[in-house]
Amino acid sequence: MSPKGFSVPLSPEGRASLTTLPPWHYAGDLLVIDFDAEPAAVSAVLPPGLEPDPEAPGGCIAFFVAWQYASENGEEYLDPARSVYNEFILLVNALYRGRPVSTCPYIYVDKDTSMARGWIQGWPKKLGEVGTTRAFPLASKAAPRVAPGGRFGGTLAANGRRLAEAVVTLEKVSDDPVYFGKRTVVNLRYFPQLAGGGKAKPPVCELVRSILSDARRTEVWEGEADIEFFPAPDNELDAFRPVAVRRGYRYSMAMTIDDLEVLEELPGVG
Amino acid sequence: MSPKGFSVPLSPEGRASLTTLPPWHYAGDLLVIDFDAEPAAVSAVLPPGLEPDPEAPGGCIAFFVAWQYASENGEEYLDPARSVYNEFILLVNALYRGRPVSTCPYIYVDKDTSMARGWIQGWPKKLGEVGTTRAFPLASKAAPRVAPGGRFGGTLAANGRRLAEAVVTLEKVSDDPVYFGKRTVVNLRYFPQLAGGGKAKPPVCELVRSILSDARRTEVWEGEADIEFFPAPDNELDAFRPVAVRRGYRYSMAMTIDDLEVLEELPGVG
Amino acid sequence: MSPKGFSVPLSPEGRASLTTLPPWHYAGDLLVIDFDAEPAAVSAVLPPGLEPDPEAPGGCIAFFVAWQYASENGEEYLDPARSVYNEFILLVNALYRGRPVSTCPYIYVDKDTSMARGWIQGWPKKLGEVGTTRAFPLASKAAPRVAPGGRFGGTLAANGRRLAEAVVTLEKVSDDPVYFGKRTVVNLRYFPQLAGGGKAKPPVCELVRSILSDARRTEVWEGEADIEFFPAPDNELDAFRPVAVRRGYRYSMAMTIDDLEVLEELPGVG
Amino acid sequence: MSPKGFSVPLSPEGRASLTTLPPWHYAGDLLVIDFDAEPAAVSAVLPPGLEPDPEAPGGCIAFFVAWQYASENGEEYLDPARSVYNEFILLVNALYRGRPVSTCPYIYVDKDTSMARGWIQGWPKKLGEVGTTRAFPLASKAAPRVAPGGRFGGTLAANGRRLAEAVVTLEKVSDDPVYFGKRTVVNLRYFPQLAGGGKAKPPVCELVRSILSDARRTEVWEGEADIEFFPAPDNELDAFRPVAVRRGYRYSMAMTIDDLEVLEELPGVG
Repeated sequence: MSPKGFSVPLSPEGRASLTTLPPWHYAGDLLVIDFDAEPAAVSAVLPPGLEPDPEAPGGCIAFFVAWQYASENGEEYLDPARSVYNEFILLVNALYRGRPVSTCPYIYVDKDTSMARGWIQGWPKKLGEVGTTRAFPLASKAAPRVAPGGRFGGTLAANGRRLAEAVVTLEKVSDDPVYFGKRTVVNLRYFPQLAGGGKAKPPVCELVRSILSDARRTEVWEGEADIEFFPAPDNELDAFRPVAVRRGYRYSMAMTIDDLEVLEELPGVG
Repeated sequence: MSPKGFSVPLSPEGRASLTTLPPWHYAGDLLVIDFDAEPAAVSAVLPPGLEPDPEAPGGCIAFFVAWQYASENGEEYLDPARSVYNEFILLVNALYRGRPVSTCPYIYVDKDTSMARGWIQGWPKKLGEVGTTRAFPLASKAAPRVAPGGRFGGTLAANGRRLAEAVVTLEKVSDDPVYFGKRTVVNLRYFPQLAGGGKAKPPVCELVRSILSDARRTEVWEGEADIEFFPAPDNELDAFRPVAVRRGYRYSMAMTIDDLEVLEELPGVG
Repeated sequence: MSPKGFSVPLSPEGRASLTTLPPWHYAGDLLVIDFDAEPAAVSAVLPPGLEPDPEAPGGCIAFFVAWQYASENGEEYLDPARSVYNEFILLVNALYRGRPVSTCPYIYVDKDTSMARGWIQGWPKKLGEVGTTRAFPLASKAAPRVAPGGRFGGTLAANGRRLAEAVVTLEKVSDDPVYFGKRTVVNLRYFPQLAGGGKAKPPVCELVRSILSDARRTEVWEGEADIEFFPAPDNELDAFRPVAVRRGYRYSMAMTIDDLEVLEELPGVG
Repeated sequence: MSPKGFSVPLSPEGRASLTTLPPWHYAGDLLVIDFDAEPAAVSAVLPPGLEPDPEAPGGCIAFFVAWQYASENGEEYLDPARSVYNEFILLVNALYRGRPVSTCPYIYVDKDTSMARGWIQGWPKKLGEVGTTRAFPLASKAAPRVAPGGRFGGTLAANGRRLAEAVVTLEKVSDDPVYFGKRTVVNLRYFPQLAGGGKAKPPVCELVRSILSDARRTEVWEGEADIEFFPAPDNELDAFRPVAVRRGYRYSMAMTIDDLEVLEELPGVG
């Protein structure tokens, strides 16, 4: 009778694992900035199998998210020390087999459980401190309203260095949030081989997409936005300094991750 | 021209101070548990000038709060790394000059700025990690609704030890939240004297109450609640283990702290 | 030209990766407790391929370590925000192909980079806050000496709950630290398959051992020791509550991890 | 019988207080940089009663310290979750009544207990993350030796922004560390008045110096040094960007804080 669980650490009761099997349930408040970086910055992070999208070669979306998580038994959220977390996600445009997609080169989160679920799904997560302005259903000088003029900020730091910051000023409910549903996210799921001096073919090197269900969202507010990235020796986010910022968005969403589809095995990278 | 600011550290531009002068603006989501501890636990934390309330000698209220703060210039909330924070507050019943009041023996917060504002106002803040379940305006297995059956948790830890946890199950909008507006909070504002071996009269030792304005709140949901406290060598919260839990509440509020009233100078404590 | 690096996230310059290729250089101060748990607790965490050691079926060693890390370019240690970290390690006795070995069921660390190096090597790391008493080369009531009577503590917390604590009282330089060099550490390197509902054979499921060089250590002090483990919903360390504590040790060490040897592919676990 | 303790929060057993009465015992590893800032930056932070030192008007010393603390009962250090902490200190030159002294405009620490002891003694502490390179008594590519060529780094961040970083390269044991024992530290002990709109005379506004005993230190190593400061909206450290860096030092020390001497009451500041 060996220890069990979906991820390390395996344990007798399976409670110690960083994550259970899906379904994984999420709800979040999102601050989103749709912008263009230099096309060269985007193409430089595309894994094998993805090509620059000639129609929108510098297209990027940054997300600052205040999440809450529960597994299928559903009640981690009663222990907020474990279920409440925050995340920064960068998506960039690409083509996969000629179709427009997005891929995630960089993503930062503040809980190990989310970092583990990320690695397992092809989201290359590192630890970071992410902040997002909270909204409250009350007028206050301490908080914006989800209403015209409401201003929301997002911040990202890692190892005590600020890496990104953004502000969005809401104008109106969005008729057509430009980035929604138009691009599947195709990620590189990757786990290295160490034996043999780290030079052998990685045992996991594949393009994947998440399979999700029950996605729903509130109305989406949009408005003017700004975003900045800053240098750090152990991060390369600052290559994505915006050359143009289109719009910012703010909304809440919920969804369930059920499974993963492997689109293509890759021979390797780099 | 000496450095300026309302609190330490004083600085040339006054930007380094932990806090500006009021007004201080707050908005928060609150999870509240109304319970009875042993009357002896309550009376043991009352500062001079406060007496046990014979009508409700064990009465306590615990708050787990997700706050956002801004000073009068109003836009700290755009830098959530500085303005978003979390707090646990314990209030206990007392009489002051024959009138029912509350006082705060213990309070934990996760930002130095809030800790400083607390000391200055008579809230005896320490650092702690506070979590509260987030609500979202969407059905999700990852989050409760602010609706009948919605369950919310609160957690408190300090120095890597869990000190308190609570769960509230919402039932209905509350007609008459029992604790509201019935008791002014009278706190001990205290700053010790160190010179003379720490035995001299403290320079600040007074009963105070905060002066606030623009308090507003959403409707208050109430329901069944549970709360537990755990021991730690550097905390005495576990003396407040509940002997009866009345109700739990969940709502949002906003308010402004404008000033402080000194009710009475005390000769000393202990 | 695809992005590069040894681990995720791959990046154009390879600076964003959580870890470079080995060699990985380490120096640390270690507090070590040699104890027996219930043999059933040990056998319950052994992966396939490892058997209980009938000669010492409950044998465990706990390490609280203050580490510093550098890659081959050698100077991360000048940026201590990235290179200084702390770790708790549990090793348990086992037999591998009839030979006495150790294996690591649980390990906690406070940096993502170390967590990533761990996963890649077969150390099933989670995040935790680890503390160890510091020694100083001066007499002080604030610190023990590395000398008879010197007392050192270790603490472990995760998600705001204390999971373990230990104290060692030094007596003398150890002639024969019982646990050294007697047992190779054989770990389960494991990375799950998610596609197919998480039920497919994991792409990485193998018994491995690290290949290291330049291991050196100071003299080892030993003495009386105590260790305790505490329960938590997301950890199972408390199954290792000691039935007997042999000795505690304190010393410093340095080493380099060069490579990994795969001992055996496993068909799966659980 | 009112609650007791030296600082808030007062409590029935006095265990909850952020700090006991002195004596307070400390041991630490220090990385020290002796440099000149613009004289105007120094004079701008001097509280009333202190004057610029015309002999060395830009003189500053920065300390990155890895501390351990214990109160008189002596054994907090066995619970490193509470006793191990890190601190950044800036001292600047001044004259007090014609005598050369130092004063501390800015100081950052990572524990609330140290922050409280600081406020009580006139050290204007804020929270920060401080890192210092660890030394080990072993040759390793992961660590410097306390020996010629050994290089040590120090880092400071607050609210996820890097505020300072330094590197010192050891050359030799110092015959005459320039800054030692030449200047008493005279600090502003300050606690604001809030009642009356925060404009009343502060109840604590005085120049003080700590009374300490049992100070001892190891030999002091010195060498070439560099230090940088970075801007942040809530800090003004970057005004101290060096115009010349003299030397860096590295050593360990131990001391006991026993009491405080009030040198002079001030009428106010700002």
